[in-house]
Amino acid sequence: MRSGLRALSEIRRFDEEVDTLVVGLGCAGAAAAIEAARAGARTLVLERASGGGGTSALSGGVLYLGGGTRLQRACGFEDTPEDMFAYLMASVGDAPDEAKTRLYCEGSVEQYDWVVAQGVPFKETFYLGVSGEPPSDDGLVWSGSERCRPFCDVAKPAPRGHVPQHPHQTGHVLMRHLIESTKRSGARIEADARVSALVLDGDGAVVGVVATRFGVERSFRARGGVILTTGGFVHADGMLRQFAPRVLRCKVRVGAEGDDGSGIRLGMAAGGATLHMDKASISLPVTQPWGLKRGILINAQGQRFINEDAYYGRLGEAALFHQDGRVWLVVDDEVFEEPDYVKRVAAVGETPAELERELALPEGSLAATLAVYNRFAKQSEDPLFGKQAEYVKPLERPPYGAIDCTTEKAIYAAFTLGGLATDVDGRVLDPEAAPIPGLFAAGRATSGLSVGSYSSGLSLGDGTFFGRRAGLAAARAK
Amino acid sequence: MRSGLRALSEIRRFDEEVDTLVVGLGCAGAAAAIEAARAGARTLVLERASGGGGTSALSGGVLYLGGGTRLQRACGFEDTPEDMFAYLMASVGDAPDEAKTRLYCEGSVEQYDWVVAQGVPFKETFYLGVSGEPPSDDGLVWSGSERCRPFCDVAKPAPRGHVPQHPHQTGHVLMRHLIESTKRSGARIEADARVSALVLDGDGAVVGVVATRFGVERSFRARGGVILTTGGFVHADGMLRQFAPRVLRCKVRVGAEGDDGSGIRLGMAAGGATLHMDKASISLPVTQPWGLKRGILINAQGQRFINEDAYYGRLGEAALFHQDGRVWLVVDDEVFEEPDYVKRVAAVGETPAELERELALPEGSLAATLAVYNRFAKQSEDPLFGKQAEYVKPLERPPYGAIDCTTEKAIYAAFTLGGLATDVDGRVLDPEAAPIPGLFAAGRATSGLSVGSYSSGLSLGDGTFFGRRAGLAAARAK
Repeated sequence: MRSGLRALSEIRRFDEEVDTLVVGLGCAGAAAAIEAARAGARTLVLERASGGGGTSALSGGVLYLGGGTRLQRACGFEDTPEDMFAYLMASVGDAPDEAKTRLYCEGSVEQYDWVVAQGVPFKETFYLGVSGEPPSDDGLVWSGSERCRPFCDVAKPAPRGHVPQHPHQTGHVLMRHLIESTKRSGARIEADARVSALVLDGDGAVVGVVATRFGVERSFRARGGVILTTGGFVHADGMLRQFAPRVLRCKVRVGAEGDDGSGIRLGMAAGGATLHMDKASISLPVTQPWGLKRGILINAQGQRFINEDAYYGRLGEAALFHQDGRVWLVVDDEVFEEPDYVKRVAAVGETPAELERELALPEGSLAATLAVYNRFAKQSEDPLFGKQAEYVKPLERPPYGAIDCTTEKAIYAAFTLGGLATDVDGRVLDPEAAPIPGLFAAGRATSGLSVGSYSSGLSLGDGTFFGRRAGLAAARAK
Repeated sequence: MRSGLRALSEIRRFDEEVDTLVVGLGCAGAAAAIEAARAGARTLVLERASGGGGTSALSGGVLYLGGGTRLQRACGFEDTPEDMFAYLMASVGDAPDEAKTRLYCEGSVEQYDWVVAQGVPFKETFYLGVSGEPPSDDGLVWSGSERCRPFCDVAKPAPRGHVPQHPHQTGHVLMRHLIESTKRSGARIEADARVSALVLDGDGAVVGVVATRFGVERSFRARGGVILTTGGFVHADGMLRQFAPRVLRCKVRVGAEGDDGSGIRLGMAAGGATLHMDKASISLPVTQPWGLKRGILINAQGQRFINEDAYYGRLGEAALFHQDGRVWLVVDDEVFEEPDYVKRVAAVGETPAELERELALPEGSLAATLAVYNRFAKQSEDPLFGKQAEYVKPLERPPYGAIDCTTEKAIYAAFTLGGLATDVDGRVLDPEAAPIPGLFAAGRATSGLSVGSYSSGLSLGDGTFFGRRAGLAAARAK
């Protein structure tokens, strides 16, 4: 059979039999295993690394949740599933999966309670001041572009970044508790076990896997189903070259070593279709601290191209995919402060013309852009892109500076968003949208809520939410 | 088995046996059949329509060829495979297939002679004046952005649009001759025969097809291989929604009825990987006649975003995928003339400010853009985008007008570019880049030379070129 597949007829005797077999122990794998085991399925998790956690543990730990969670209410924010749905449908890219998005928004309040019930701690306080991951141990943050145009005109904004309690970068806290909960659920975890093939019966149904551990190959029968929760492919240069070549230019690849697309390829080998393989989350964290949002982002023609108050995940996408990664943040002396992450100053000038020359921009281009911007900024207005008034002020106090946001010089933090096509219960779909019997997937091995544009927390969010649903569906299928 | 597949064990007896079986009779299918039959393979073409031709026959008929073809030389143009290669690698989108592109450029002179040898007539004259498809019966035209920035700095320009002799829209001429040549080659053509499934043996190799003709299902064994030349998926709304949702907004879908992705889905069902499914050729023919290139294309911020002399396939791509389809061509009274295809005038004004108001553009935005443009246009310069000097003149003679190029109001002519992953001999590749035994593909059922940006003639070009190679490879495999 093809690479990544093994015929059932070739397996003389399975070395082990379980009901639900989960491949990979990031947040989606843990959520799937917990729910499958609790539903009474004999559940085994095979993790190729020496311990669980994966990219989820390396991440900022933000879960994008809302609709009126306990944490939102404790912090004094109102939110509804409808507003959350409207924001997501408008902000996550072209052609989001409406059914998944609706279920996610309707189930988000319960999903938060579920995460808390696994022992994950959240401090019921709100943090205002940087994007995504607070430097404090506060529980709620803005993690998207909810307050920015065009989204604030579409849905009432609410902060939806739910962050486990720990100072900064809390993915490991989330995963420690989810893994402990996995163990309590009765699921068994086997580390250092790399799945090399799916076992197919004569009808093309997935009935098990073959895995290698310390050089020894073993076969596992999965009576109810195999759930692929193996992450994305940001470390697979070959796949990036084929599907998302611009990601190869990004300096920071966000992902544990296992994000090499192997699980996606296993699913494809078994007949699974893929979706949105060209899409990636690209964060350009240049507007940290937020005061720098008062600058203007310009392209190689000296033009603005976005409201600078948009979330950094949106800035990076616009810069890399629409401006070829040739952008700079222009500030004046009043606005300038040391950026947290993007350090290189590309040019300084006493006049816009001097800055143009330094940046090799077309003569007069930046000056024209600044003239239009400043004229309206005097009234705190931004008719081009609708930046929030608090970040709009004329840039007219020399010297002027340009912070280098070109892809090759600045931080562009990337991970892939494309993956296997799944239904709302994690069933992997073939090109005709029919489920492949016995095969499930969740997390970044699948195409999830974001299909091109990003708000922080969507991956841990859909990973845990649809991981749970996949676990339940697989347990029921045994 | 899954939809689109049939197990060999289910077929009691094949109704017919051939060496090479070609599915679809557009340019790629004809080329494949001709070469397979000439190489000695018993060859059958199954076409689902009542006659051959497909999208190729409906097309403009342009073949993108070069490197010094007989026609180019007869018209006094020098060209080399190296310049052609440099142009294509720079212009067809992110991450082109280098091996395919190189072979294509090196084989292009011979490919032209081959097309001529099939009886396709070309008049050895050059036409200058509109893009792509001449209104005359001349043989050679500019059909890309060769003379425009940034490409003219990368490769020496040459016209490479090779057009069969006939006044305008010559695809039917090409196909009439290719189909006649197919018949002469000894290949048999069966029309009204729709392939519904590929037959797989126990090892996953493709060994035949099942087809339906007038309600009767028949099975065909293909000893050497099945070649899918079934076209793209511009008429499959479901696939567009999944893979290329913006194409749904385009008014003109370029494709015969058969371009519903059925062949791509058959290939996927058999384990074939796909590439660049999000990409489409989008033509916005607003700069016909060429004098209109002297206008400026602006976006919803009143900014220019491209050199207006770029080929219309490039304009459409930039407008739809990077400016959300919200663009206008601004002209003054000196430049204005009746456009050939995009007819609606969105606004007229005595001043740029009046035009801004009419278009609901931010106040001062278009005026600033025009000020910068005109300042340099006085010296025939365009420092922002490098438009050729002959199309650069100040726009300052009122009234001003804006030709409506928004996607919903103008002609955006679209067809899909994504499809099955193939090697240079048309072998369909699985996700691990291993060939699926017995399965070949060519034409727009595959990802070909263009992976996002377009020059006219690339599809008939790669369809015939790689169709030939697939036919030969399949014939050899019998």
